[in-house]
Amino acid sequence: MKLITTPAAIQQLAQEYRSDGLTIGLVPTMGWFHEGHLSLMRRARKSADRVIVTLFVNPIQFGPGEDLDSYPYDLDRDCRLAEEAGADVVFAPEKGMMYPKGFATTVTIGGLTTSLCGASRPGHFDGVTTVVSKLFNLTLPHLAVFGEKDFQQLAVIRRMVRDLDFPVAIIGHPIVREKNGIAMSSRNTNLKKDEMEAALSLSQSIAAARMAIETRGVAAISVDEVKDLVAEHILKHKECNVDYIEIVNSNTLKSCAILNEDSILILAVKINNRVRLIDNSMLMEA
Amino acid sequence: MKLITTPAAIQQLAQEYRSDGLTIGLVPTMGWFHEGHLSLMRRARKSADRVIVTLFVNPIQFGPGEDLDSYPYDLDRDCRLAEEAGADVVFAPEKGMMYPKGFATTVTIGGLTTSLCGASRPGHFDGVTTVVSKLFNLTLPHLAVFGEKDFQQLAVIRRMVRDLDFPVAIIGHPIVREKNGIAMSSRNTNLKKDEMEAALSLSQSIAAARMAIETRGVAAISVDEVKDLVAEHILKHKECNVDYIEIVNSNTLKSCAILNEDSILILAVKINNRVRLIDNSMLMEA
Repeated sequence: MKLITTPAAIQQLAQEYRSDGLTIGLVPTMGWFHEGHLSLMRRARKSADRVIVTLFVNPIQFGPGEDLDSYPYDLDRDCRLAEEAGADVVFAPEKGMMYPKGFATTVTIGGLTTSLCGASRPGHFDGVTTVVSKLFNLTLPHLAVFGEKDFQQLAVIRRMVRDLDFPVAIIGHPIVREKNGIAMSSRNTNLKKDEMEAALSLSQSIAAARMAIETRGVAAISVDEVKDLVAEHILKHKECNVDYIEIVNSNTLKSCAILNEDSILILAVKINNRVRLIDNSMLMEA
Repeated sequence: MKLITTPAAIQQLAQEYRSDGLTIGLVPTMGWFHEGHLSLMRRARKSADRVIVTLFVNPIQFGPGEDLDSYPYDLDRDCRLAEEAGADVVFAPEKGMMYPKGFATTVTIGGLTTSLCGASRPGHFDGVTTVVSKLFNLTLPHLAVFGEKDFQQLAVIRRMVRDLDFPVAIIGHPIVREKNGIAMSSRNTNLKKDEMEAALSLSQSIAAARMAIETRGVAAISVDEVKDLVAEHILKHKECNVDYIEIVNSNTLKSCAILNEDSILILAVKINNRVRLIDNSMLMEA
């Protein structure tokens, strides 16, 4: 497996792959790989001749006071894991090479980015779409795999690709969970032992919501009742501060008035105001 | 020569060219071709295996009250001229196909876009950079040729390409002038006969400025003196309203304090508040 650290070198390699008629699959990440990331790489491996994993803790998608500085990082460990998962290349750009002096460009998606994580993290999605535009142009992928855990991000990326006509197929990949149900996240590593029970309340509240809908029947329960049920589960834990608990249409991300097969429950919770966790689930699929 | 009218078809053709190992040269235009456009096509012809000319009067780069509706258009004429100039393909997308319902993405360049044309046409450059991003992704060019008449636009595009890592070489091509000196522009067609003398004052004032600098010597004349001299020339014509007359560094577009070999005179003038003309010239080159 190749480790590449400059934008010029990865773009040249991608162009060589293209010239050789090879298809390229991209998995953009911020590193500190867990099974969730690795499943994205294996998914890319299935559909592309060459798998490029990018590893970049993108400063412009972090706001002031967020966890940029504490974001976990171990390049050697990540390279080993990526290779085992089938990556051909890890692109981990050196600091300062992605946003050199004079950098002045922003890619902004309207609408989809104003609610949910966009509301509590202003500028976050601008940072995401700007860096993903760069990564698309640097790695020239035929397809790119994104996790459904960042559900809003996936919707925003799909919108951007459609709007700007990037010749890239976007593949969403299901959330991978620990045995105890928690959605895998690099940020879980920042949880203290005695915070795990509170952190588990996200996935447990989702399970409870789905159970309630199944038991009572979708016609007999309102959107607000489901949200209240979820909030109640989470707020049992004094460590939890709810950022948002919403039920939205999975295509438009607009609030649902009634539950149906497009409804997705999506939530963000801060544990001890230090570790921000997100999770989501369709409410009516199998 | 091929005429293509849908984004999907041009992207597929571009991908076929790429697969066949052919290089692609892009000339993005708003049509109503004159010798200026044709010189860009011939320039692309020299350096690329296939020349794609795009012809799209891009609504999002026009502000309210600007001349979107009166912008001249004749597709048959333009296709014939493009073919003669060596174009292989004209891409003229059908209305509504570039910005379908739900379109929500903007590419914004900071800094360079706030002065000059950006100051008097708010949102103009966002419209330019957004559509050029789309055109790059649709035509997958190795190189793209832009005219130096839109000098600020060229600087903004270069910035965008550098910032977002588009794998496209940007080629600036010199202004083409009529025999009488006026910079060729599709908008010249909207000038009435008795407005031509006023319109000529742009290029004539530039010539006068260069002459003054050459005669008196660059050390003996200030930036303000040159600007005053230009304004005086132009304001002799009651039809002229100055939008701006600036002398800036040609790389940064920031105001020059003193004249040097990077100084460019750049101006925008409205003729009878109806036809907005721009022109520019380096002040010290041969």
